[in-house]
Amino acid sequence: MTTNHSVSLADRSTVFHSWSAQGALAPLAIAGGLGTTVWDFEGTEYLDFSSQLVNVNIGHQHPTVIAAIQEQAALLTTVAPAHANETRAKAAQLILDRAPAGFEKVFFTNGGADANENAIRMARLVTGRDKVISHYRSYHGNTGAAIVATGDWRRMPNEYSRGHVHAFGPYLYRSDFWATTPEEESERALRHLERVIQSEGADTVAAILLETIPGTAGILVPPPGYLAGVRSLADRHGILLILDEVMAGFGRTGEWFALDAFDVVPDLITFAKGVNSGYVPVGGVLIPSAIAHHFDERVFPGGLTYSGHPLAAASIVGTLTAMAEEGVVENARSIGADVIGPALRRLADSHEVVGEVRGTGVFWAIELVADRDTRAPLDAAAMGGLKGELLGRGLLPFIAETRLHVVPPAVISAEEATRGLAIIDEALATL
Amino acid sequence: MTTNHSVSLADRSTVFHSWSAQGALAPLAIAGGLGTTVWDFEGTEYLDFSSQLVNVNIGHQHPTVIAAIQEQAALLTTVAPAHANETRAKAAQLILDRAPAGFEKVFFTNGGADANENAIRMARLVTGRDKVISHYRSYHGNTGAAIVATGDWRRMPNEYSRGHVHAFGPYLYRSDFWATTPEEESERALRHLERVIQSEGADTVAAILLETIPGTAGILVPPPGYLAGVRSLADRHGILLILDEVMAGFGRTGEWFALDAFDVVPDLITFAKGVNSGYVPVGGVLIPSAIAHHFDERVFPGGLTYSGHPLAAASIVGTLTAMAEEGVVENARSIGADVIGPALRRLADSHEVVGEVRGTGVFWAIELVADRDTRAPLDAAAMGGLKGELLGRGLLPFIAETRLHVVPPAVISAEEATRGLAIIDEALATL
Repeated sequence: MTTNHSVSLADRSTVFHSWSAQGALAPLAIAGGLGTTVWDFEGTEYLDFSSQLVNVNIGHQHPTVIAAIQEQAALLTTVAPAHANETRAKAAQLILDRAPAGFEKVFFTNGGADANENAIRMARLVTGRDKVISHYRSYHGNTGAAIVATGDWRRMPNEYSRGHVHAFGPYLYRSDFWATTPEEESERALRHLERVIQSEGADTVAAILLETIPGTAGILVPPPGYLAGVRSLADRHGILLILDEVMAGFGRTGEWFALDAFDVVPDLITFAKGVNSGYVPVGGVLIPSAIAHHFDERVFPGGLTYSGHPLAAASIVGTLTAMAEEGVVENARSIGADVIGPALRRLADSHEVVGEVRGTGVFWAIELVADRDTRAPLDAAAMGGLKGELLGRGLLPFIAETRLHVVPPAVISAEEATRGLAIIDEALATL
Repeated sequence: MTTNHSVSLADRSTVFHSWSAQGALAPLAIAGGLGTTVWDFEGTEYLDFSSQLVNVNIGHQHPTVIAAIQEQAALLTTVAPAHANETRAKAAQLILDRAPAGFEKVFFTNGGADANENAIRMARLVTGRDKVISHYRSYHGNTGAAIVATGDWRRMPNEYSRGHVHAFGPYLYRSDFWATTPEEESERALRHLERVIQSEGADTVAAILLETIPGTAGILVPPPGYLAGVRSLADRHGILLILDEVMAGFGRTGEWFALDAFDVVPDLITFAKGVNSGYVPVGGVLIPSAIAHHFDERVFPGGLTYSGHPLAAASIVGTLTAMAEEGVVENARSIGADVIGPALRRLADSHEVVGEVRGTGVFWAIELVADRDTRAPLDAAAMGGLKGELLGRGLLPFIAETRLHVVPPAVISAEEATRGLAIIDEALATL
């Protein structure tokens, strides 16, 4: 008989897990899901406030996407990237339709990491330069260059790529620039970035690679003027700007692309997760005309067997079509503005342990502190306790360091959001 | 109306292609496939002697695999890697059942490149050493470390990772060791590898990473004693041996793993392609007990959103079950021994342009030369002409540099193989 215990045991005895010590794993057995809900093998339901790894923007098991996958499976699952595939071109067109003007082609990859790998490759080849500047507070993927572009602790045991430089980004709550207002944080972060560029030698820098809104690092919505200022710095120094929209893109922020809310157009955009809610592994790079045509006569030295995989393409077509028809992006925006934002601000008022709340759409963080004045983070034991309280009340959380991220599917209803936020309210009260 | 022209045009205007100059692309529009056959939008059929990128081992649109994908799509497409999933554990178990004794866990990735990235990561962490030795004639993937582990031309524009060293491997037809017999080639290649290890400093070398049978580099079946000798060298110096079975694994060579035909057990095995014929993007690392338990208390610093993706796992379960039930591996072995091998040797006898044929199972290369004595390769124009002759006769070829690789699906019948080989015979006669 299939039980939570049997599934968890089979998993732990045969499967090696990401970013973990393998000895202490106690994986939650998930049997199925629908919309914003998942359940285990014993019928316990959880309201999914994690979207798994912040990817299930369209919710679990959306019927349009499932049907698109099943139909493409019956037609043609896989084909070499060199051949032309009808569904792949449709997927590319739907992505391009949602991108800023001037983007002309899509290079498909298997996920976000190799999307960033290939964007970095393009930037280096187009500029003839080597270095890539990214933020310390960032995550860009687990492969060779992507993990070293990453700023957080996951970089340190993996620093085998050269040519990577890190700068501090804006984060007013824990400012690295002694700033006290958003405007000051923005100005000083730009000054710091310019000093890094100057000190590295501007003509050695191929790209600045940033998450439009750093996600796992804490949903750090950039302050007014920051992204436009980075764009301007990049232009002044002939540096390409790559915006990583792997987590923030395709509805998460209440926009098709997070960058749509800012006055900035990058040179390359990378994506994965939300483009098809991760129903089939896929990612990619959005390429503007000038860079696409740079490789008209020159061979592009990158590629992969599953680039433009038909099954992945079908899931993109299904996802982007359903999201448009059902107003999923608009839903994320209004749920963020009308339900999550106000509720989180109330939580900040009523719980001493809440240091700051911030976010947009269905992309929010609650920063938890042991002390509001010193802003000392809550300890790991308390975070573990919070996780238990949330799970026990039927909410599947996304916890990163000492933050609770509020990142439900973008299809969440006001009722579901309110219910989840009430659970968070109760759980915070136990701290 | 959907035509070859409309699909090809839509593709070229929206899709950026792997390993290509984008200006001169003329992609073949593929509408569908079944078993060893694919067809375009105008009903022209091709016998697939490429298996796309040497991945469709079980043939196109195998009904068991399609059904497994469709059923899992209806059940649960995606879940975070941290949670336990029933299908994922089944897939891991079926892979482990086919592996050499002592392998205990599977780390799932999105493809072969990130499988190699993670195997390299494990080797570096377990040994505390930095360098990875691989062969010049090799391909290991397109991401940061994988592309620099790669030996061929694709490495050169991408050399941003450090800690990679390359050695020459055995290839008697174009020996780098002035050898004249397979035994001599093997001994001298081992001597050369040992000299590289000594000269780099044995205690700086984390891993030797080799394709069990180098694939894209020319299907270079290692001579007697080579792999056992590498194993012995690695053991003597505390170096881990990683065998890349991405292309050679899961039936391609007439064995479940190509290494089964050799007297060698590596420390890590990487796979992708054949494990599910690429129906859903997936790859992984096979990990023995000692390395798995090294990370029981230590955090493994690698991971990805789609690690252990349920839809990919279902396609693995469907593929490996059907391959076992239908004797696909045994079929590949007998087709290689009884049909392809003898036919290729006859082609070598009857066509001056054939320099050498070599291979096993459904994994063969015909090396084409302008001059049999000097072994000067055929020129690119002639190879282009050959491709046209093959396509014109209804055979979809896999051409690498100046070689025609004979790499049909492992389900190919004797009749289909004979028909394809007759087309190759005719096309070679036009050169």
